[in-house]
Amino acid sequence: MPKPQKHIFVCTQNRPESHPRGACSQKGCTAVFDEFMKQMQQRNLWEKISVTYSGCLGPCSQGTSVVVYPEAVMYGKVTPADVATIFDEHLMNNQVVERLRVPSDVWG
Amino acid sequence: MPKPQKHIFVCTQNRPESHPRGACSQKGCTAVFDEFMKQMQQRNLWEKISVTYSGCLGPCSQGTSVVVYPEAVMYGKVTPADVATIFDEHLMNNQVVERLRVPSDVWG
Repeated sequence: MPKPQKHIFVCTQNRPESHPRGACSQKGCTAVFDEFMKQMQQRNLWEKISVTYSGCLGPCSQGTSVVVYPEAVMYGKVTPADVATIFDEHLMNNQVVERLRVPSDVWG
Repeated sequence: MPKPQKHIFVCTQNRPESHPRGACSQKGCTAVFDEFMKQMQQRNLWEKISVTYSGCLGPCSQGTSVVVYPEAVMYGKVTPADVATIFDEHLMNNQVVERLRVPSDVWG
């Protein structure tokens, strides 16, 4: 496995329904992760990009949270419908998807 | 939560004992992750560094695998005894711990 040019971590943290912090598991993170993997397969990007699920990335109120390294861009409230856009604009063309970026007081 | 200066992902992937690929869960990854959190607490680095567990990072034969972003340095065969060194040398002083780095054909 080569070092990826981009490494995406998708939060898949789970917490009980009653937990005050919430969790990305309640915001559809599994479907978001699945869509990242589907796009990876369709675009055959395994040699260039890695996608990994992770524990809590911090901004639970903004779930589903997704962080892209090495540029350390955090996206929030990501849905499956957003994933192709993240590939088209950010991962393939280095244009951050500003509408999905979490507020700078959350990650800035 | 501010954007961390360093973000460490510790692989905690599990697979059945008989799986040919192995997994970091069989290499003591939970103890490695716990030691990262213990060091974070002792050094009070919550505002500067993030530590997150993750799914498979790729080089299973090198487990426990740990990747540090934004510099994308992958460490392999990490044990709890190595964690303080990673803090002292890399996370606090930007000196990569070369003896723990995975081979360049694994991640390079």
